[in-house]
Amino acid sequence: MKRIGKRTLAFDSKPALLGYASAVGEKEGQGPLHEFFDMVSDDDLMGEKTWELAESKLQKTAIDLAVQKSGLQKSDLDLILAGDLLNQCISSALASSESGVPFLGLYGACSTMAEGLALGACLVEGGAADRLLAAASSHFCSAERQYRFPLAYGGQRTPTAQWTATAAGAAVLGGGKGDLRITHALFGRQVDLGVKDANNMGAAMAPSAYDTISTLLTELGAEPRDFDQIVTGDLGHVGADILVTLFRENDGIDLTPVYSDCGSLLYGSDQDPHAGASGCGCSACVLCGPLLRDMQAGKYKRLVFAGTGALMSPVSVQQGQTIAGVCHAVVLERG
Amino acid sequence: MKRIGKRTLAFDSKPALLGYASAVGEKEGQGPLHEFFDMVSDDDLMGEKTWELAESKLQKTAIDLAVQKSGLQKSDLDLILAGDLLNQCISSALASSESGVPFLGLYGACSTMAEGLALGACLVEGGAADRLLAAASSHFCSAERQYRFPLAYGGQRTPTAQWTATAAGAAVLGGGKGDLRITHALFGRQVDLGVKDANNMGAAMAPSAYDTISTLLTELGAEPRDFDQIVTGDLGHVGADILVTLFRENDGIDLTPVYSDCGSLLYGSDQDPHAGASGCGCSACVLCGPLLRDMQAGKYKRLVFAGTGALMSPVSVQQGQTIAGVCHAVVLERG
Repeated sequence: MKRIGKRTLAFDSKPALLGYASAVGEKEGQGPLHEFFDMVSDDDLMGEKTWELAESKLQKTAIDLAVQKSGLQKSDLDLILAGDLLNQCISSALASSESGVPFLGLYGACSTMAEGLALGACLVEGGAADRLLAAASSHFCSAERQYRFPLAYGGQRTPTAQWTATAAGAAVLGGGKGDLRITHALFGRQVDLGVKDANNMGAAMAPSAYDTISTLLTELGAEPRDFDQIVTGDLGHVGADILVTLFRENDGIDLTPVYSDCGSLLYGSDQDPHAGASGCGCSACVLCGPLLRDMQAGKYKRLVFAGTGALMSPVSVQQGQTIAGVCHAVVLERG
Repeated sequence: MKRIGKRTLAFDSKPALLGYASAVGEKEGQGPLHEFFDMVSDDDLMGEKTWELAESKLQKTAIDLAVQKSGLQKSDLDLILAGDLLNQCISSALASSESGVPFLGLYGACSTMAEGLALGACLVEGGAADRLLAAASSHFCSAERQYRFPLAYGGQRTPTAQWTATAAGAAVLGGGKGDLRITHALFGRQVDLGVKDANNMGAAMAPSAYDTISTLLTELGAEPRDFDQIVTGDLGHVGADILVTLFRENDGIDLTPVYSDCGSLLYGSDQDPHAGASGCGCSACVLCGPLLRDMQAGKYKRLVFAGTGALMSPVSVQQGQTIAGVCHAVVLERG
């Protein structure tokens, strides 16, 4: 592994994505990306008794499908790195409790899929694991109950609010052959510009996305057009606009020709998502669905996946704390 | 990095503990280990307005002291890996929000310090970081509010309940010189034997500690007496008894000559801790206080630190889910 500049890690072995899969709920399956998902459930309870169990089953489904598509068995995995938004990351713990695979819980809020891939690539490159799996999930109903109101209350959402995706994504990383590879990673630092509005996560996260992506471009000596896509996940419409503005005003860079955001891609405007989608599962399912499928089909050769998270809790917001953002990035390449 | 057997990682570079520190609350400072802590606060609020901010200040204090004792600046760190028990790991996020250091949130329940050290050693060994810091914390008052009852309610505790430590620990890992080094790591898998009693975490965690420690001993071809200490953190009295019994009955091995548990060490029996101490901060402060100081002073040459966590949430317990344990281990050596 080489360091480029202070923070960009370049992988000699370029860990391969050996398999990947996405599993989503009904609303996500009705959106513009529906054809790219491996599993669309028409039952958001997934046949379970609680929303939390439903989320864990959704994550387990994505994990099982990713392992299956990699041609491996779960017992071939050396590690599972997984996280979600629920208190004590319980849906990830439950999803892998019977796997028999060493388990590392992560908490990066909605950046968790990127955190897992970046960490996972370091572990494969360094020899700590031959094959590992990174996964993340979220569920609209478990998140609403935990962060906001009981569903039956029918709370009104503000225009800047994002809709927590009922979705999960999982990817198997390893050495050896593979079309899709991770060439670089950059771990994000917290950036807190003082946003206190828990219904405007995009604004809280955009500055950290700017910090990570601009550092990556600078350290690689790259311009946005050196990539076919730079994808954040998930700033939503509001945060994505702020990110584009930050690049234009600070650096005179127009990000728009190659830029998209998982939170803006997941739902159609007819689906009433307000500022777009969010939740750990959003960027996980958009990456492990349309983005990687499009790469594999030859549409993109080089892609930056920059997962963004808002580091807050209902308690910290109620206590008046500001919300820091964090953004971890990986560079993916079709070899 | 070499793999020994299927799961034990042996580090060629043996990442060094360049600095470590512990910060604890009043009750912990009155216990038998009081002289080993870097900071004992006589104010559990740490001058803050809320328990959550107090916990984050405690963790930040341990981080600042560990960095200071390593002779480095915070800006010399490539990464901070940190976690805690609070929803969305908020005390760790707040503790490092202004650090400017790339931040990876972990969730391993009470095994978080071991998860951070094991992951951190892999990252240093693999070249992903020259220097990084692992930290964990817990606070009796923030944990009671979140997991159980408001403090003022004065709820009665069962005999098998452990007392969440108001404590934090932090350690700086890096290449180069250093007396204390990490030679091996083993990531734990979840083990769930069906325990549902959230007031008996020791029973829920002991089987995972057995899985991890027995695998480590087998793969290293070692016996307990090859180590000066094998320390779990934090099974408490009940869980420690179960672990000793599992080794005796399954393998005919007597662990007791070298075995201790952070949860049994932290409080004196006169401090009414019931089954002992728990919380991410318990094993973090016992390791980054007495254990590493004793190693450095020459008392121990070779030590296994096996952090144990119970993967549950108040919601999962209320919904009747069983509690899986997980245990990550590192082997420490005085060089």
